Order: sequence, then structure tokens, then C-alpha cells
Amino acid sequence: MSHHHHAYVGVDLGGTNMQCGVLGADGKVLAREGAKTKADEGADAVIKRMRKLVEQVIEKSGLPQDHIKGLGVGAPGAIDVKKGVVVTAVNLRWNDLPLAKMLEKELKMPVVVDNDVNVGTWGEYKAGAGRGYDSLLGVFIGTGIGGGLIFDGKLFHGHYLTAGEIGHTIMDAGGGLGKRTLENLASRSSIASQIASLIHANHPSVVTEIVEGDMTRVRSKVIAQAYKAKDPLTVRVVNEAARVIGYAAANAVTLLSLPCVVIGGGLTEALGKTLVYEVQNAFEDAVFPPELKQCKIIASTLGDDAGLIGAALLAQEVLTA
Amino acid sequence: MSHHHHAYVGVDLGGTNMQCGVLGADGKVLAREGAKTKADEGADAVIKRMRKLVEQVIEKSGLPQDHIKGLGVGAPGAIDVKKGVVVTAVNLRWNDLPLAKMLEKELKMPVVVDNDVNVGTWGEYKAGAGRGYDSLLGVFIGTGIGGGLIFDGKLFHGHYLTAGEIGHTIMDAGGGLGKRTLENLASRSSIASQIASLIHANHPSVVTEIVEGDMTRVRSKVIAQAYKAKDPLTVRVVNEAARVIGYAAANAVTLLSLPCVVIGGGLTEALGKTLVYEVQNAFEDAVFPPELKQCKIIASTLGDDAGLIGAALLAQEVLTA
Repeated sequence: MSHHHHAYVGVDLGGTNMQCGVLGADGKVLAREGAKTKADEGADAVIKRMRKLVEQVIEKSGLPQDHIKGLGVGAPGAIDVKKGVVVTAVNLRWNDLPLAKMLEKELKMPVVVDNDVNVGTWGEYKAGAGRGYDSLLGVFIGTGIGGGLIFDGKLFHGHYLTAGEIGHTIMDAGGGLGKRTLENLASRSSIASQIASLIHANHPSVVTEIVEGDMTRVRSKVIAQAYKAKDPLTVRVVNEAARVIGYAAANAVTLLSLPCVVIGGGLTEALGKTLVYEVQNAFEDAVFPPELKQCKIIASTLGDDAGLIGAALLAQEVLTA
Repeated sequence: MSHHHHAYVGVDLGGTNMQCGVLGADGKVLAREGAKTKADEGADAVIKRMRKLVEQVIEKSGLPQDHIKGLGVGAPGAIDVKKGVVVTAVNLRWNDLPLAKMLEKELKMPVVVDNDVNVGTWGEYKAGAGRGYDSLLGVFIGTGIGGGLIFDGKLFHGHYLTAGEIGHTIMDAGGGLGKRTLENLASRSSIASQIASLIHANHPSVVTEIVEGDMTRVRSKVIAQAYKAKDPLTVRVVNEAARVIGYAAANAVTLLSLPCVVIGGGLTEALGKTLVYEVQNAFEDAVFPPELKQCKIIASTLGDDAGLIGAALLAQEVLTA
């Protein structure tokens, strides 16, 4: 592996788990390792655990220390990317934590920190579904819905460094019902609770059997299983969510004239092309002007690796710029 | 006026009228003149008329020809700004018209063409309400609703050069009612037709008297007059439109993390701060994360001059870049 003279490490830091990988010069993951985050032990303990994880993964990769040129971290929450500070991360209970500086001190290498969704979008842009486009929107569907923007080959952070929060855009300005956001209408959690509500209201569904009556078990795989079994209730709820996701993608593309939208997250992976097809139909029905129907709506290809690959590639981008 | 060695001419080309002005080095309009567009006479006739108008205005300004460094044109429709081509302008019945080249031939000076709303946004950014912000969204409310985007001091055109079409974003994904766009819900035409419908359904309103029963006369001034007289029907319709405009502005700022939104167009000018106040309230109710409530929602200050001033300033920007 002597040709990997310029390798980067990426960490996808989540509220529960962290994933770490070493990326070779060819963009391949040379080694990977995961660990629990244990945010309740406090920031110092989490950072020590990250240090250990990074060191383990470098060792596992077989690369000499001096071939590792830097570390990229995708962290949940609001990040001041210029300073490498986690401004707020609710999941981790961190506020104004100088994560980049603290990790640089531990690891003796340059560290780049960005928001987890931005980092995932960067991964899909550089090495995944979005390769070859100059600009794109990444939409990741999970408990919430997050987004990231690439304009002309650069991550777009915006004036307050919070850009990309498509999940909080209003898709239903409603009269009496109040405003509802994309996340309210189409996140995996929203889909699960809509299915649960309908079942509670005595609508028949195969989901009841799959989860043996335990609605807390309605997650991506269960939803996908019921959807693939053509369970009418699940198909209706998921397709309605897909319609709203398609409209939200259309709103972003109508405003920004983008050539590509990458749809990712656990539900997308579980449902595959079926979901993206429904999103695309709604997108084409809504985008303006009509020539923007050319914009490609595509499923993410890096799956759970988008975060760590994107983090390593973003470190490379920022540190060699 | 001998200090205006670097003056630019701007033309705001509309479907019915064109406005032209010479801008001095200090950004002041030195001379101005208007003419009918008469699009039905064909593109060549319109271009000859533009030439005449530009020459008249230069003469009126008293500046020698060699102090005029270029012409900027804001044209309605889809513009290929790189080529200076009007791709489609429905109002003018133009398709793939090389407007910049044709005007350069007539006027023997460099010509820059952009979309009328982009040009108005640029005017507000450089010389109007948006001065001092690095990025902003311009929203212009009229027959339709148009938008323009400035990121980091540059007009953003997007991959297909159509960026800014906020009027066509979906604000009501609706179930049975179908999707409704910002324009459907909140343009001046939509407000007028909502008022007319309510009056037809026998709701009392002072508007009936103002227009003497002729609903085609419900335009910005009439709406403003009724709104200021606290006509309950008009207040309800306008405030509901303002709410949706505020939500649309919030959606854009949530996605793009912008520090400023400039609201313009005839209705904004007629209603003044009252409308902007209602928009701001809805904006703050909807934008995410909460720190983005700092983003300023402000009324345009250039009024009808935004187009010609913006066109001249854009020519200056592009030709001296």
C-alpha cells in the first residue's frame, strides 16, 4: 500500500455510534472501525474515544503515520466550519465546543469539521451518486430530514453557516391546520407514526403482523418490507411522503436551477428505486420551468459510508485547497 | 458633469413599456426616458426603438458618447446570460434572440443582458435596500411573483440559468385541493381575484365602491386604498397573502441561510411597511434554525427604478470584472 502517500481519515460522529475509516489515494476505504459515542460521559471522554478509534483504524490500514494527511469529521448539529467549532449539537449535548482544535491536539494532524449532512452530501458528490455534476442538493431521510448543497463544486454554508435545512421548509402553509414542514410530512418517523395512527384507527395492515403489534419497531426495514408486499396502507403513506419529498426537491430546484438531487438515508436504501421513482414523478409534476425536468433525481450510492467517506474527502479538499 | 467618465446606460424592457436611464459614476440617474415596447411590431422594430431611446437618453444626459462604457438590459423571460440571448420571452414573443449582439451592432458599445427580476435584485443589492449585505433574496410581487438571488456578491443563475423562480415554489402541497404555488396564493393578481370572488359571493367590501363595480380595476393602488381604510375583507386577503410570502421567504432562508430578503413590486410600494411587517411576522414564525430570525426582511427602496439602475450597475459589474 506504499502508493497511499496522501491518505485521509474520516469520522462520522453520531449521537449513538461513531464510524471511522481510512481513505486511500484512490478513494477506497482501506480500513474501518466503529465505536459507541457514549455522549453522556462528556465531550472529553468522547474525544479520547475518537482519538483511540482513529489510531486503531490507521494501524489497521497498515499505512505509516506520516502518510495520513488529515482527519475530517462529520458532526450532528450546527457547525462553525471556519473555526471547527460545534456550536450546538443537541444529541451530544455540546455547545461551542472547539472540536477541531481539541482533536488536533490529541492526534497531531489537521482536522476539518462540518455538519454530518453536509459531509454526506460531499461524499455523494465526490464519490457517490452525484459524481460529475457541478452542483447538487442532497436530501437525507431519517428520523428527521437533512439537506446539503453543492454549488459549482463547493459546499454552500450560507451567511449563518446553517444552509441546507430543507427538512424545515414549509410544504403545507395550511389554513386551519397550521403550517407543516417537509419533516412533519415525510420523515421516516412521520411515516412510521402515520402508519401507527392508521392502524390504531383499525385500518388493516400487514405491518401489525410484521412488528407483532409493537409499533416502536416500525423502522425503515419494516416499512420497506410492507411496501414491497404492496400493503395498501403502507403504499399510500409512503407514496404520499414521496410526493411531498418530490415537491420539496422541485422547490429547491425551481429556486436554484440545479442539475441533480441525491436522495439518501435508511428509508431510501431500504426502498431503493421505487421511492426515487415516486419522488421523481412528483418532482417533474412540480418543477419550473419545464426544462428543469432534466434535473436528475437519483438514489445515494454510498449508503452508511457516505458520512465517513465524505468526511475524509472533505478534509482532503479543504487541506489541499 | 465632466467627472462621469465611466457612465453606464440601463434599460428595463417590459412587455408594454421600456424605461431607460444613464447612471453616473456616483450611481445617480443623470437622465431618463421611457417608450412603448410595441412587441407586436417584431424584434427588429423593438431593437431599433431601444437604440433610439438609448441615444436620446445619452444626449439628454449631456455626456459625451465616449464616457458611456456600456449598456445593461433587463428583459422579461429566460435569458442565457453568458451569450446575451433571450431564450424565451412570452410577453415579447421572442425565442433565441441574440439581443446583446443585435444591440451591440446598433449602438457600438458592449451590452449585458439578464432577466428583469435578476437585474432588479442587483439594483436593490448595489444601490437600494440590500446595500451592505453579502447575499440576499429579492422577491418582486406583481402579476406574478419573481425572485433573484445574490450569493457572496454575485448574481446566482444556477446550472440551467433559471434560478430565482420562487413564485413557482409550492406552498400548499394540498391533498384534494392540488398543489398551489406562491404565485397562486399571493401575487397581486391572486389577491385581486380572491377579493373579486369574495365580493361576488356577496361579502361586503369598500373595494366595490372604489372601483364602481368594475373588478378589472382592482390593482395595487386600489388594494392599498382598501387595506389602509381597514376594509376587513381586503385586510384578511392581503394578510393571508403576506403570511404565505413570509413562509416562502422563510423556506428560502432556511435552505440558504441568507442575511437579507428584499420585498419589492407595486403592491409592496403601495402598502409600504404594513405589508413587510406582516411578511416579517410569518417569516419569524417559520424560519429555521431560530437564529435566522436575524435575517432582515426589508422593502425595496428603488421602486420602478430598480430595473434600469440594476441593469446599468450590472453592465458596470460584468464589463469591469
